[in-house]
This record gives sequence, C-alpha cells and structure tokens, in this order.
Amino acid sequence: MKKLEKKLAAGPVDFDSFFSQKALRMKASEVRELLKLVETSDVISLAGGLPAPETFPVETIKKITAEILEEHADKALQYGTTKGFTPLRLALARWMEKRYGIPMSKVEILTVAGSQQALDLIGRVIINPGDVIVVEAPTYLAAIQAFEYYDPEFVSIPMDDEGMRIDLLEEKLEELKKQGKRVKMVYTVSTFQNPAGVTMSLERRKRLVELAEEYDFLIVEDGPYSELRYSGEPIPPIKHFDENGRVIYLGTFSKILAPGLRIGWVAAHPHLIRKMEIAKQSIDLCTNTLGQAIAWKYVEDGHLDGHIPKIVEFYKPRRDVMLEALEEYMPEGVTWTKPEGGMFVWVTLPEGIDTKFMLEKAVSKGVAYVPGEAFFVHRDKKNTMRLNFTYVPEEKIREGVKRLAETVKEELKKL
Amino acid sequence: MKKLEKKLAAGPVDFDSFFSQKALRMKASEVRELLKLVETSDVISLAGGLPAPETFPVETIKKITAEILEEHADKALQYGTTKGFTPLRLALARWMEKRYGIPMSKVEILTVAGSQQALDLIGRVIINPGDVIVVEAPTYLAAIQAFEYYDPEFVSIPMDDEGMRIDLLEEKLEELKKQGKRVKMVYTVSTFQNPAGVTMSLERRKRLVELAEEYDFLIVEDGPYSELRYSGEPIPPIKHFDENGRVIYLGTFSKILAPGLRIGWVAAHPHLIRKMEIAKQSIDLCTNTLGQAIAWKYVEDGHLDGHIPKIVEFYKPRRDVMLEALEEYMPEGVTWTKPEGGMFVWVTLPEGIDTKFMLEKAVSKGVAYVPGEAFFVHRDKKNTMRLNFTYVPEEKIREGVKRLAETVKEELKKL
Repeated sequence: MKKLEKKLAAGPVDFDSFFSQKALRMKASEVRELLKLVETSDVISLAGGLPAPETFPVETIKKITAEILEEHADKALQYGTTKGFTPLRLALARWMEKRYGIPMSKVEILTVAGSQQALDLIGRVIINPGDVIVVEAPTYLAAIQAFEYYDPEFVSIPMDDEGMRIDLLEEKLEELKKQGKRVKMVYTVSTFQNPAGVTMSLERRKRLVELAEEYDFLIVEDGPYSELRYSGEPIPPIKHFDENGRVIYLGTFSKILAPGLRIGWVAAHPHLIRKMEIAKQSIDLCTNTLGQAIAWKYVEDGHLDGHIPKIVEFYKPRRDVMLEALEEYMPEGVTWTKPEGGMFVWVTLPEGIDTKFMLEKAVSKGVAYVPGEAFFVHRDKKNTMRLNFTYVPEEKIREGVKRLAETVKEELKKL
Repeated sequence: MKKLEKKLAAGPVDFDSFFSQKALRMKASEVRELLKLVETSDVISLAGGLPAPETFPVETIKKITAEILEEHADKALQYGTTKGFTPLRLALARWMEKRYGIPMSKVEILTVAGSQQALDLIGRVIINPGDVIVVEAPTYLAAIQAFEYYDPEFVSIPMDDEGMRIDLLEEKLEELKKQGKRVKMVYTVSTFQNPAGVTMSLERRKRLVELAEEYDFLIVEDGPYSELRYSGEPIPPIKHFDENGRVIYLGTFSKILAPGLRIGWVAAHPHLIRKMEIAKQSIDLCTNTLGQAIAWKYVEDGHLDGHIPKIVEFYKPRRDVMLEALEEYMPEGVTWTKPEGGMFVWVTLPEGIDTKFMLEKAVSKGVAYVPGEAFFVHRDKKNTMRLNFTYVPEEKIREGVKRLAETVKEELKKL
C-alpha cells in the first residue's frame, strides 16, 4: 500500500492533467476501501454480496468443460459474434419461455459480461445527459454507478414490503408530465431486491406495465436473484406481462451457476437488442466464449433446473438464522425486511444513527455491513444498512448479528 | 433475417425515441454485414481477422482447466477484484520484465476483457469531447470505433515501411502547439500493425518517447501481434524505452492462447491503472475469472513460451504463400507491404479504384477482403485493402489472391 502510494506521488508526469472530466469525478468509495481491509481480518463480514462457493456446481462444470474442450474447442476458444453464442441464446430463450412464460417469438437475446455490462450498455444507448430515469429508493449500488456516468436526472421512488410504491410512481409521473418532463425508463430489481430484499407484488407488476404504456417509458427489470426463493410462491417477472416490448429483462448466471464466468443476458425487443449489440462491438467485441459454452450446456442438459433447488436448500437456513438472530438480539426501534429469497436483509435503525459513522465501531467489535447511504441516489438516508446472509456460515451469521446489535445498543444510548 | 426485420418494423412503441443521441449515431457497418454473408458461402475470405483454431493449444488448455477446477474452483468460479486475478497479474509482470525488459517495479497490471475493453476504458478516462488524439493512417478499425464514442478530434499520421512517420508527427505537433492545441495521446499498433502489417523501427520508437516528453502526451501502444514474428529481429516495445510512465501498453492472449477467453491486460503507471480500475468497476465488475486462471497457469507454467514458436511455425508458410502469390498474380501498379509477422498484408491499388465498390465484384469471383477506407479516420483513401493470411490454408490463400488479381485487372481496364 505504502509502496503504491509512493509510486503514485512520484514522477515528473502530471497524470491528472490527462484525465477526462468524467474520469476526474470518478472516486473509489471509502466504504469499499474499508471493507477491503476487513476481508483479510477476523471480522465477520455481512457486507459482501458474494454467493457461497459451496453452491458452485463444480463437478458439473468440470464435466461440461471437459466435454466442450473435447468436442467444441474450435468454437469455444474462438472469437464469437457480438450478439452471443447462438446455442446459448436459443437455450435461454427456450428456458425463459418455459419458466417465465415469456414467448420466444417476442424477445431477442444478447449475452453480456455479467448483467453489470447490460447496465452500462443500457446507459450508453438510452441516457442523454439530463434524461429522467426512475430508480427505487434504495437501489442497486452498481446500477447507480453505471447509469451515473451518463449524467441522467435520477428520480427515486420509495419502497415498502411489496416493492416499489407504484402509487407514488404514478404521482411522480403525473407531476413530471405537467413539468413537460419525460421519464425514459424505470429501473427495478423486481424480486428479492438488492439491497432491500423485498419483492414487487403481482398487482404492482401489472400496474407498472400499464403505466409504461400510459406514460411511454421503458422498464429495465433486473432479475439476478429471482431463482433464489426460500419461501412463498413464485411470481412471474414483469416481462411476462409485457405485450409491446417495453420491458428489458436482465438475467445472469452469477447466482445460479458461478459469477467467475461473467455470463449474463438481456432479453428484449429486437430493436433494442440490435442497438445494444452495436454498442457492445466497440466495448469488448464479444462475451467470453468458453464461459458461454459452459452456460449453454448447463442450461441445455437440464443441470440448471436440477441445481437451483440445491442452492435454495443451502441458503434457506442462512436466511432463517439471520432473521431469527435479528429478532433475538436487536433492540426495540430497529426494523428489517423479511425477504422470501435472495441474498440480503435491509435494516433500518432509529433516526439519528448514521450507519456510515457507526461502521468503524462495528468493525472494532468484529462485524461489518454496508451502510445504506450509497444505495440512495440522493444519499439522503443515513440510518440504514444492508446485511448479506449467503456468504457466511450460520453460526457466524448469528454471532455477527449479535455483535451488530451490541454496537447499535451503544449508539442508541448516545442519542 | 426477414423475420427479424418484420419484428423490427412492427409494434406500437417508437423505440428510436428512447435512444441517446450517441446511440442514434451508431450504425452497423455495411461492409461488416456483407462480409457476414460471405462467411457462410464458398467465397475464400481474406477479410477476417481470426487466428486459426489449429493454433489453439487445446490439450494444454484441457489439462490446465482440469487442474484449476480441481484445485482452485472456489476462486476461479467466484467474483474477482476489478484489477484482476493477482497470480495472473504477477505472472504477466514477470513475463514482461523477462521478455521485454520492462521493470516490474515500474508498472501496474490491470486485466481486461480483451484489449478491446482497454481501448474503451482509455477513451473513457482520457478523452474529453474535442481532445486531440493521434492515430496512424491507416489504424485499427475497432480502436477508431472505441475512441469515436468519446468525441475526440482525430489527427492521423501517414505510415511507411518503418511504421508511423515520426517526422510528420513532429511537424504536426509543432503546428498544433502553435494553434494552442494539446495532443493528449498517440495511439499506435507498433508491431506488425493492423491493418498495414508494418513495424515501427527502433529509432522511431525512441524518438516517439522523446517527443512524448517534449510535447507532454501519453502513448498507447497496442501489442496484440508482437509475438507473431516470422522473420527479422525482435524489437523491444516502445514501453521498454519509457522512463516516466507515459506509455500505456496493451497486451492480449487472443493471438498467443485463445481469443474466446477474452483476456487482455494493460501495463501502465499505477496512477493511470487506478483510474481505469475505478472506471471498469461500473462497466463489468471484473474480468471473467476462469479465463484469467487459465491464462495464469499458461504463463506461469511456461506453456506460453513453449507455444509461441509453434504458432509462428504454423503461420509463417501462410504469410510466405500470400506474399508469393501477390508477386505472381498482381498486375503492375499494385503495391503491398511485406510484414515480418502478424496477420495482415496491406495492398494499395492504383488511384481511381475504389475497393469498397470493387468488393461485390470480388465476392462474385469468389474472394473477399476488407476495403481500406474504414481504417482511415477521415475515410479519405479509397484504393487500399487489408488481406488476412492466418485463417485460410495455404492453397486457398494462393487461389484467393489469384481471384483477387483477376478482379483488379478487370477494374484497371475500366480506368
């Protein structure tokens, strides 16, 4: 670290003078830096967003990869088309039709380097500086970062246990319309949201699509966690209710196979996909082909459907333990969401506690979390935090929550 | 195709109204579309830019991949850091020190999704709209596309058999300085250039670095083909002569291992790498880890150094046959470069022939090439073309060049 800083400081070249205006604005997150340090210590980190490596179907991947390198090495190791590896695109279209009732004939598939790349591509092809886009409050941190580069005007809509408050969205749409402003798109992590853990209800999903028609906007539905359901009944994705191609659906293999492959996909109207495909050409030519081939066989040979229940079985007790521990240890005045799936619980502390300031104390007590502030585009909520329950084993989750509760109690005393 | 167009036309949503200004400007290349059709026909295509799959070290990759999935699956299938898989970054730094005499202590390594992603990242962190950047005439097509998105003012410098005309660059720098304009960076494919096949001489490399100091600019050295030398003596990369960190070196495994892994790297001053790393975070979080792990073992265990001579041995006869066939069949007035390595020969026809118009005729005669126009940022040269000699077997190269020569002769008659 010291060596690096010395390097950074030294030398006769004024590197900052070469950076673009937008690059000068880019800053590493302080919280991220702090959490990096935590990872190598004895602190119990509930801060991460990683799937548990125990859920990776390693034996299946070994078998599939060996088969691919035996039978399809010439294709799997070569450049592919920008739109993606055709057998995978077909397998995904079929899978989404079967699983989500989204007709294959209505969507085109583009494979991407994880759904993060889809967010950047959407920013690139949709957002002009000043364009109004709607996100949830709170919303996925890296979506804010991806969109922010393109200088939109963010509007954020509060959530409750049924997801985005569509009634408030409608009010806002009407208000903006009166101001002569058009909303270009609404971004939602519809199921087991990151960071809040909540799921948009069926009724709201349908209503959101109606509003998209009425107010002429696009919906970006980000679905990374939707297969990780531990209780309750599955709800079809918003895309299922989309008649006219207004919903851009983002899927990923990061939580149902392995994130290290960096394979995600976009399912959307061909006209939107075509533009994203052209934009992607100059960004990375194509998504890694070997990873796409592995994902293809994983879906095509039925491993995906067979493996999902195993992931669910592995994570469910972790979610249960976290919710139980919160119930057991947290003092009055603290509330949290009760996710039916996904990876995160969202905790709200009494007003007056700033979770960003509290983090250092928590770390000194041996537990880490992500302060909620950065999940709000306007950074206007200080008393929230995100807890992850997929990466750390049950006993550590319990102990981590206990330590966190102690920290909170001490902070409460100061109020 | 027809079905897709029908889909594109139909529907009540005016998708174009959602696109950003920059997205509306993005167009698919007509030539690319034509060449796509060619790929499935009997036409001999000298248009591609693909390595031959016969050069992929499939058995080594099988072995390495099995080992990785046996011993390191938890890491190789997990999210990695944005900067890249540390063992690979170290192995590359060591390899570059040994092979190119670039001290490890002077560079930081960032791994990327193929060097194409590095071009986009460089555009993102360096180019403000209107910034002057210098490229070669002709230059790598996809670099133009990557940089163009960020709205630079392109200045292009002609080349000869020793690469970029550094004397003309100096004149231009002086002229721009007098106009109060600063050149921010010079982009060069220094060795076996794409598309021209030529290599910048040792003397010019040194002079370019001096000029960078004198006129205060950065150099982006793109080195995808530098290991593919079939004759002549190796020349150190420009980065070798860089004292102060002005050279950003781009490397890739696409031509020395397999492009389907999409693994490239940037070697540059830590201050520049840090900014690119932050920019990459919102673009794709990290480069695919499995591919990075494969590349790591490939370098670390010495396979890379062992395999390069085999690739060279495979391509050399193809280059030789292409040069012989050009000599044998091309009419007077046609000239071409004599590359000592790489993948491409650059052909210049007599003035008055437009290779873009000639392409359809060539295809009807059973041969395809890439018209040179698109490799010039100002699209001001019509009588050039790029021929690839790595993908097609020797006998087809000979036949392809013969067909091409016939096409050219017919065109010449019309002049």
